Amino acid sequence: MPTALPDLPKRPQVLVIGAGFAGLALAKKLKNTKYDVTLLDRNNYNTFQPLLYQVATGGLEPDSIAYPIRKVLQGKANLSFKMAEVERIVPERKVVETNIGPIEYDYLVIATGSKTNFFNFVQQEEHLMGLKSVPEALNLRSFILQNFEKANNLPKGQTQSPLLNIGIVGGGPTGVELAGALGEMKQFVFPKDYPDLDLSQMRIVLLEAADRLLGGMPDAASKRALEGLQKLGVEVKLQAKVEDYDGKTLSTSDGFSLPTETLIWAAGVQGDFPLGINAEVIRGGNRIAVDEYNRILGYSDVFVLGDVAAMITKDTPRGYPMLAPVAIQQGEQLGKNLIRESKGQAWKPFRYLDKGNMATIGRNKAVVYFLGQNFGGFIAWLMWMFVHMMYLIGFRNKVTTLWGWIYNYFTYDRALRLIIRPFERKTRTRKADLVNTGA
Amino acid sequence: MPTALPDLPKRPQVLVIGAGFAGLALAKKLKNTKYDVTLLDRNNYNTFQPLLYQVATGGLEPDSIAYPIRKVLQGKANLSFKMAEVERIVPERKVVETNIGPIEYDYLVIATGSKTNFFNFVQQEEHLMGLKSVPEALNLRSFILQNFEKANNLPKGQTQSPLLNIGIVGGGPTGVELAGALGEMKQFVFPKDYPDLDLSQMRIVLLEAADRLLGGMPDAASKRALEGLQKLGVEVKLQAKVEDYDGKTLSTSDGFSLPTETLIWAAGVQGDFPLGINAEVIRGGNRIAVDEYNRILGYSDVFVLGDVAAMITKDTPRGYPMLAPVAIQQGEQLGKNLIRESKGQAWKPFRYLDKGNMATIGRNKAVVYFLGQNFGGFIAWLMWMFVHMMYLIGFRNKVTTLWGWIYNYFTYDRALRLIIRPFERKTRTRKADLVNTGA
Repeated sequence: MPTALPDLPKRPQVLVIGAGFAGLALAKKLKNTKYDVTLLDRNNYNTFQPLLYQVATGGLEPDSIAYPIRKVLQGKANLSFKMAEVERIVPERKVVETNIGPIEYDYLVIATGSKTNFFNFVQQEEHLMGLKSVPEALNLRSFILQNFEKANNLPKGQTQSPLLNIGIVGGGPTGVELAGALGEMKQFVFPKDYPDLDLSQMRIVLLEAADRLLGGMPDAASKRALEGLQKLGVEVKLQAKVEDYDGKTLSTSDGFSLPTETLIWAAGVQGDFPLGINAEVIRGGNRIAVDEYNRILGYSDVFVLGDVAAMITKDTPRGYPMLAPVAIQQGEQLGKNLIRESKGQAWKPFRYLDKGNMATIGRNKAVVYFLGQNFGGFIAWLMWMFVHMMYLIGFRNKVTTLWGWIYNYFTYDRALRLIIRPFERKTRTRKADLVNTGA
Repeated sequence: MPTALPDLPKRPQVLVIGAGFAGLALAKKLKNTKYDVTLLDRNNYNTFQPLLYQVATGGLEPDSIAYPIRKVLQGKANLSFKMAEVERIVPERKVVETNIGPIEYDYLVIATGSKTNFFNFVQQEEHLMGLKSVPEALNLRSFILQNFEKANNLPKGQTQSPLLNIGIVGGGPTGVELAGALGEMKQFVFPKDYPDLDLSQMRIVLLEAADRLLGGMPDAASKRALEGLQKLGVEVKLQAKVEDYDGKTLSTSDGFSLPTETLIWAAGVQGDFPLGINAEVIRGGNRIAVDEYNRILGYSDVFVLGDVAAMITKDTPRGYPMLAPVAIQQGEQLGKNLIRESKGQAWKPFRYLDKGNMATIGRNKAVVYFLGQNFGGFIAWLMWMFVHMMYLIGFRNKVTTLWGWIYNYFTYDRALRLIIRPFERKTRTRKADLVNTGA
């Protein structure tokens, strides 16, 4: 420790940027230890990203899948939180510059997660809908409903389809789950809400560049997902290369085109980290290379966890997949290693315990790959619900979510079809999105 | 009916502006009748305004107290909804001009409710927080939490009190209930969330111009409310005339001043109606004078319901109070009268059945005036909860709200302390508040 006071030894300061799965797992592991842990986040809540698509489709309240960070830390004297935006890391001075001033650290942990990867579609970003945050999920919910209201208000004879059609780029879990939920709304909800609309005009199209959905799962799961979505009326285009979208018409390289106001971009994510660190960045995913202790090569006191870390090993030439379980396990492992450090014990390298992965397709249908086994149908759907509920933070959120699911199941409804803040596409400036002025 | 087709007699078109308590009560009454009813609203949901203060204080999800209008109308063939902004009524042509084009009517019903009355504080409006809509409630929730985060981030020694203090103008039910909820948060929630803040610096001040709280209720209730709030640490200033607020310091005519960033204006409401009607407007409340059939004097086919109607009778020289039960009963009565009309029967004048009124002060405490009797304490609190839950639309919202209350009761918590869309005070333009650009 650099500047210990003469009589009162300074407690080592662990500064964690990002209160996502990884940051919170680390902080919890370090409670009641000799470390002081400060969590920084630009939001005052943790987002359970795997369920954002249910917020976007009116199945769950945003409040159910977001959890106040201060509530996680209540009563834990050595853990604290600051709501702040990081501007730059200055490792030479062991300080992080933020919008609320500089904050010193002994150990720095970068757990800033990922953001949407638009690849070569960055120019079209202002036309695209994302699904990586609670405001984005609420914007998508509003936007789809606004377009339905607009279509309903069109003079007779004018074509409604561009307002009703929805394109989704990316056949990973987010794209598949969102497409399934929208397919169910088209079948069970929209016809009752909009008896005057011709819903045969509405197309839900899921585009995937590879030759199968759910690339991270076994072939059997991909096939099940494809069949399930098709049964729900979703058009799935595989090996589809999106070529252009001008806010009006989506086109692919093989000549397919879809007139749509709504194109949801779920094609990938990339690491999102602050300036100031001199590290090797793995291209493609934009992730920081780390060793098996989640340490950045060349630093002894800076660590990277979760989506933003690329731990290159013999088995993981491009790092572990960007998934919640990896983030949680890395957070816990770093916590254990810091405790070992404080006891003078040797650090242990990270080993990922892959419990499998899963995606839901719709009512009674999911695909689960768990401990080397494939599950489908109703059993998989129950497993999916159980696991997601267990990962939700807090008893209130668990119960509210369970109640929402029970209601949705028995009524075939998605009740939260509210346009609380109408959304307008414009040149996108993140700040403007997040701040509401006036009331 | 003006323009009946030769062989297919045209069904009379009832156009209702506003899907609040009054508009929805009327529409429901007219289902399966010979009328076609079109509801217009700028929002696609109905707001349960009496519980907005619980959204603002993190006790309930906004989704629990808002209800999609289309869901109310599902399966009712002669009722329909259009999301639109009314620009002007043109009674000579029996048409309403809107942002989606003109809409014709045979009977027009204005049920547009009320908006905040800033009295001579209109100039200061941009500094004030309102509580009349879901976005306003969410803005208030964000703003209070943002100020706490800011106070927590202040350098040591700098005064936190302007960020922590909260002023509330208006000792009616909204002001009293909000003050009580904030008093409880100060006692039970904020100390746990912000162990580093000196909460003894936080003042919650409720200002009322009259000499007692809850002016619409008996003296006994006023006294109970005053004592209850004082026990929760709320400073109540009676006969307080707010003189100035510049966004920093509130001052009254008798020399009291409070440094606060947050001043909530709950001092009154006024009728909010579209242009184009040539009617007598009752000053003060800005309400349209109507006869005992809710008809505007001088029109045979234009009606006004609820907050925006001033039905002047011998007993109500300034109209009935602006309360949900009045709006609901007037909506139902007009519905019954239109049914009578269609059967060639005579109309019946409106008679208000005053079941009483109520306000909650905090945990286990409410005041209820019901059928001429005063209730207080735990019994009144149960009555308050039961009545509010019954008025909420929809089974899902009832259950979610009840669960929220049970959780709040047993945990002493207000769990939804999320800053989803940070709020910034600026020159206020209603549009800018409601629209989010970018994501």
